[in-house]
Amino acid sequence: MTVYSIKQVANLAGVTVRTLQYYDKTGLLCPAARTSNHHRVYHRDDLLKLQHILFYKELDISLKDINVVVNHATFNRLQALEQSKYAMKHHVKRIKSLLQTIDKSIEEVKSRGELMTDKELFVGFTPPEI
Amino acid sequence: MTVYSIKQVANLAGVTVRTLQYYDKTGLLCPAARTSNHHRVYHRDDLLKLQHILFYKELDISLKDINVVVNHATFNRLQALEQSKYAMKHHVKRIKSLLQTIDKSIEEVKSRGELMTDKELFVGFTPPEI
Repeated sequence: MTVYSIKQVANLAGVTVRTLQYYDKTGLLCPAARTSNHHRVYHRDDLLKLQHILFYKELDISLKDINVVVNHATFNRLQALEQSKYAMKHHVKRIKSLLQTIDKSIEEVKSRGELMTDKELFVGFTPPEI
Repeated sequence: MTVYSIKQVANLAGVTVRTLQYYDKTGLLCPAARTSNHHRVYHRDDLLKLQHILFYKELDISLKDINVVVNHATFNRLQALEQSKYAMKHHVKRIKSLLQTIDKSIEEVKSRGELMTDKELFVGFTPPEI
């Protein structure tokens, strides 16, 4: 079985060693084992859990809530991935809508007029009207 | 000139009245005027500033930093819009990369194998290699 040091995990995932130490301290992500020198030893399952933590962080979910989800007995990897996918697709849609609003606003500034209605200024931030 | 009550601005922008009160208190967005009854009166320029605040918030910029930018004497609307556009496009790219990582992870779970390398688990979180 491949094992990873805290530094290796940090490099793989693009986080700092300090972050991983914090995740261990708070019980969010505890390494599978320790060496006789008390160094943390991570397994692939820990990498998978870290991946979920980072997906949820990307979705602005608090570390406290992430802890509850990823460390729950009923945690299901496939279900969690499908949910993250759905939420991220929704997020992309929202940002694309905001990008359209930005483009319209740029046009407005360049025209030196008032091309946009008050509502149009905030399209993307407000839920679309049905 | 069109004027807006705090409730009207809140409805337009999809934020709460309490948020706007907080923005006023902290100097982030102070209404253009007050009625004789001390009710806040917003003008279109306030809406434009609120739009920028919300774009920056979407980009995870702290309210403190937003305050410094949008209330600086050299603030330039066109420049700010172009910067927000650039940052949001970058953000969409990142999320799309994460979506690919999610899709691969879903495949992996369904295959019950280990299809992904350790690095592939975190593509999108780490900067792309050159």
